[in-house]
Amino acid sequence: MARPVGRRGETRERILAAALELFAENGVHGTSLQQIADRLGVAKASVYHQFPTKDAMVVAVVQPATDAVGALVDEAESIADRAGQLDVLLRGMVDLVVEQRTLAAVLHGDPGVEPVLRAFTDLPGRVQRLQDLLLGADPSPARRVALSVLGGGLMLSGVDPLLAGLPDDVLRRELLATARQLFH
Amino acid sequence: MARPVGRRGETRERILAAALELFAENGVHGTSLQQIADRLGVAKASVYHQFPTKDAMVVAVVQPATDAVGALVDEAESIADRAGQLDVLLRGMVDLVVEQRTLAAVLHGDPGVEPVLRAFTDLPGRVQRLQDLLLGADPSPARRVALSVLGGGLMLSGVDPLLAGLPDDVLRRELLATARQLFH
Repeated sequence: MARPVGRRGETRERILAAALELFAENGVHGTSLQQIADRLGVAKASVYHQFPTKDAMVVAVVQPATDAVGALVDEAESIADRAGQLDVLLRGMVDLVVEQRTLAAVLHGDPGVEPVLRAFTDLPGRVQRLQDLLLGADPSPARRVALSVLGGGLMLSGVDPLLAGLPDDVLRRELLATARQLFH
Repeated sequence: MARPVGRRGETRERILAAALELFAENGVHGTSLQQIADRLGVAKASVYHQFPTKDAMVVAVVQPATDAVGALVDEAESIADRAGQLDVLLRGMVDLVVEQRTLAAVLHGDPGVEPVLRAFTDLPGRVQRLQDLLLGADPSPARRVALSVLGGGLMLSGVDPLLAGLPDDVLRRELLATARQLFH
């Protein structure tokens, strides 16, 4: 089975990058395997070979976020001190947004994504654990609203044209300051 | 020309309400005139008679928001005092979100909506004026990030399951407190 593993991996990464671009531009519903093939200048069969369905592609596109949220929640759950736990959670969320600027907005904004994530990935459950940790026991309405605004705001900030010119380190610093202000 | 105006207006409102529901569930790309007719239990021709294209329907769905943002910006521009102006803007944004919980998320999240709004409505231009007023001259990165998080967070909060149980008056009060905290 002497498969060209490196090259196959490279093709897979290129397909996923093109898929994420098109999802962000047109939504998941508005993107076809054919469009992804056209964007890459390859035959549709090459895309189909790696990802037989669009759902499989959505799952692969979100895999890094699924892994990262799981690792973040595991780390936070091991911290007994509440202030330290919150700090790790806020930093982790901000890092995730800055590292995956486009993905966050696609995940949050597209109604076509949610059912696929529920059916085929652990992401919704992990985000729920993240939310539960941030809220703590018996959260007030003020706490709920602060988390909702922070979560929604972080998700969309990655693709906000208003922030397009900010370098990653400035974006990270200011998002973290904003997160701490909302969630102290 | 003895048209049944009242009834016609009623049908139009029902079509728009069904369209907004379906846009929120499936996105604009994922919604057809046929689905809207099915949801209402009417013939597709009845929908088509009022809205010959889906774009026309999107424009009509956002019309209340277009009007409201225009009125808010006009009011704010007439206020010389900066603190008073900011207060009017933040209150107005929060009111809009609470009154149109679903619409805000559809507008923000769906990649199918943006080009239609640009082509056929004044909404993007009015939102830009709103943003310019909020930012003021020469805004810092911190100010840009605060506005981005606030704008994105407000947009998505209307349909966040975390806040679904909050009555409108509590949601309004807490969103306003959050907005002032971020944007003082």
